[in-house]
Amino acid sequence: MSIQHTAEKAKAASKLMAAVDTETKNEALRKIAEALEANKDEITAANKEDLDRAENENLARPLLKRLKFDSDKIAGVCRGLRSLAGLEDPVGKTLASTELDIGLELYKTACPLGVVGVIFESRPDALVQISSLCLKSGNGVLLKGGSEAAKTNRILADIISRVSEQSGLPAGWLGLLETREDVSAMLGLENSVDLIVPRGSNEFVQFIMNNTNIPVLGHADGICHVYVDRQADLEMAARIAVDSKCQYPAVCNAMETLLVHEDIATQFLPLAKKGLDEYGCKLKGCEKTREIISCEPANEQDWQTEYLDYELSIRVVSRLEDAIDHINKYGSGHTDAIVSSDEPAARKFLSLVDSADVFWNASTRFSDGFRYGLGAEVGISTNKIHARGPVGLEGLLIYKWLLIGSGQTAGEYASGDKQFKHTPLGKNCPL
Amino acid sequence: MSIQHTAEKAKAASKLMAAVDTETKNEALRKIAEALEANKDEITAANKEDLDRAENENLARPLLKRLKFDSDKIAGVCRGLRSLAGLEDPVGKTLASTELDIGLELYKTACPLGVVGVIFESRPDALVQISSLCLKSGNGVLLKGGSEAAKTNRILADIISRVSEQSGLPAGWLGLLETREDVSAMLGLENSVDLIVPRGSNEFVQFIMNNTNIPVLGHADGICHVYVDRQADLEMAARIAVDSKCQYPAVCNAMETLLVHEDIATQFLPLAKKGLDEYGCKLKGCEKTREIISCEPANEQDWQTEYLDYELSIRVVSRLEDAIDHINKYGSGHTDAIVSSDEPAARKFLSLVDSADVFWNASTRFSDGFRYGLGAEVGISTNKIHARGPVGLEGLLIYKWLLIGSGQTAGEYASGDKQFKHTPLGKNCPL
Repeated sequence: MSIQHTAEKAKAASKLMAAVDTETKNEALRKIAEALEANKDEITAANKEDLDRAENENLARPLLKRLKFDSDKIAGVCRGLRSLAGLEDPVGKTLASTELDIGLELYKTACPLGVVGVIFESRPDALVQISSLCLKSGNGVLLKGGSEAAKTNRILADIISRVSEQSGLPAGWLGLLETREDVSAMLGLENSVDLIVPRGSNEFVQFIMNNTNIPVLGHADGICHVYVDRQADLEMAARIAVDSKCQYPAVCNAMETLLVHEDIATQFLPLAKKGLDEYGCKLKGCEKTREIISCEPANEQDWQTEYLDYELSIRVVSRLEDAIDHINKYGSGHTDAIVSSDEPAARKFLSLVDSADVFWNASTRFSDGFRYGLGAEVGISTNKIHARGPVGLEGLLIYKWLLIGSGQTAGEYASGDKQFKHTPLGKNCPL
Repeated sequence: MSIQHTAEKAKAASKLMAAVDTETKNEALRKIAEALEANKDEITAANKEDLDRAENENLARPLLKRLKFDSDKIAGVCRGLRSLAGLEDPVGKTLASTELDIGLELYKTACPLGVVGVIFESRPDALVQISSLCLKSGNGVLLKGGSEAAKTNRILADIISRVSEQSGLPAGWLGLLETREDVSAMLGLENSVDLIVPRGSNEFVQFIMNNTNIPVLGHADGICHVYVDRQADLEMAARIAVDSKCQYPAVCNAMETLLVHEDIATQFLPLAKKGLDEYGCKLKGCEKTREIISCEPANEQDWQTEYLDYELSIRVVSRLEDAIDHINKYGSGHTDAIVSSDEPAARKFLSLVDSADVFWNASTRFSDGFRYGLGAEVGISTNKIHARGPVGLEGLLIYKWLLIGSGQTAGEYASGDKQFKHTPLGKNCPL
């Protein structure tokens, strides 16, 4: 089946999914969990084939670890499926209601986007999480996983499609793409695909954004900052800086640049260096930094670099405002934190830093759908429209306006025979 | 000043506007209204120059009427400004709050998009409405009005910039573009412009959408339908059909295709024709339609045509589902209405028609920001992401996630030392 046909089927299915009732969707999620458990042996056997091939191809150890999909991982995704089944159905929720006039009521209600195309990395659990979020939110989905996980992804997609369709979901709502050519083809299908969520390297996401007219939700760079203010608990600041950089440096929400107020730099920098040294973190600093601790010089390019490794740029600033300006200039609008005991300074930072996630006295590593309590996440967005930060169910929804009248014409209001009332109704749509 | 410089100034100003307090913004709106009233003579004199030039260039009468900006129009926009000043400030509103753990609170709060570029038609009142919506929502704005209104737009933009900056808005938040070259240049400024809202012809909007990487909010086609169900008050249906088509046919929310259930076609079509004939509306029908009333034959192309005139396609369908399929296939996702006295049929139509605005027993012409009670509107969107249907203040906002901690690190939670609570807080952000 061509990707165009797969996408058209998903689009046709998505039009029906908007009206699938809550219980059918929840039952489908529970049945998928049962089927994954029942087919555990087949799934782990398929995963073994992927793992063997990957080992033969000398895939790096961390990637092998992400690729592995064993009983524990299956139990994890099944817990996720059952917890998603227990969540309120976001589709059809009344978001606003207005009485335009007697017998003329306007309701703004949540509805699915249509078809979401998601390109994700090697973790097979991502396939289950993303497809189940789409199912619950009433969206068709096109999935493209890492090629290392081809066999695991195929059996998972087969089980999810088959079981959900037996439970009453429309045929073809889930489509699996298998090649890079499929992805390229999808980028041109703007009549069938409503949103693309690419997860992966900076260059890859940028490539997708530049090569499609379909809206893209995601982030390219993740240049996150921690700023240590002049009034701050320096032990706390060092703990947060070390955690933000070193707890898992290969991810988008890890810190890349540390900004330090000059008043406390002499005290703070040796403290931070001690913690960072324990992880063997390589430091690059501005001139003032290098007067206090020994490290390589940082240049203009370093402020724009996402190391994704045990490597950190450090800059000493004279004022809070300079830290904010640095972040708004060099940051990627992802996640930035201030460590301060001065509430007005924190308020200023939180309101003026133009990023999706802005933290006060907490590590940048908290920027994540699971940690935010959104359940699974589809991705993290640095877009300024639609959805920002970690994106769960809500980012897969839009709304429609339902107007329920009793024969009203615009002419009656244009002529002045009738007047609009525009009274908030505060009630749910009766349909 | 080059458009690039204008846009960069607006971007820099927008970073500050996010933190401008409510009273400063409301005072600016009231002062703008006072200044427009105080400068009434200069404004109408500038408008007279535009009108004289347009008359010499033989601009069509309806366009001349839209271009005119007299005392009444000034009074109208001033009413709008004062009413906007009275509305709640949407910026900073807490949209959700979660206690991740004791002393670790997450707030999702509304914030401005940044800089919005709006290209609009000849009405000078649109300039005042759009810039005031941007001011209230804390966004910088780049405005390009119709060239016919160049002198009027210039004096209005000057007054709004000057007075608002005197009231405390950051310099350069409003920029006026004057030429088509300015618009072309803006399309490439993705680092300074966050959203483009083009208003105008189908071709123009399509051109903008195809020539920028900046998100575009708007609609190209407006192919709206009225479907008359088998159980319907036929007098009401005829009234709604005539109003949807003829009350103002040159606009996007006017009906272009009438769909009629075959069971009532013999009774209904002559009734509808009578009303439509009064406006001299030209009719094109499918074969079944032409067996009942005399009209020209409609072809495949007609179902895809936005006439924007006294011209209408009519199709008889055998089932509600066929009407829904026709609308989802040929419609533009703008506004579609069902006339029916059968609630389950209405519910099915409202949930399965995939359009921004779906109406039951009301004219398609109600699809409008003013009629919806949104105050002024920036435009009407058929996007599936961000904002859909008439877009007022809310569509100019996005949100940011604020996390307020007390020194927490992700490591403590990853190691299992601490557990997330994820309790809904139900309170506003304290900052």
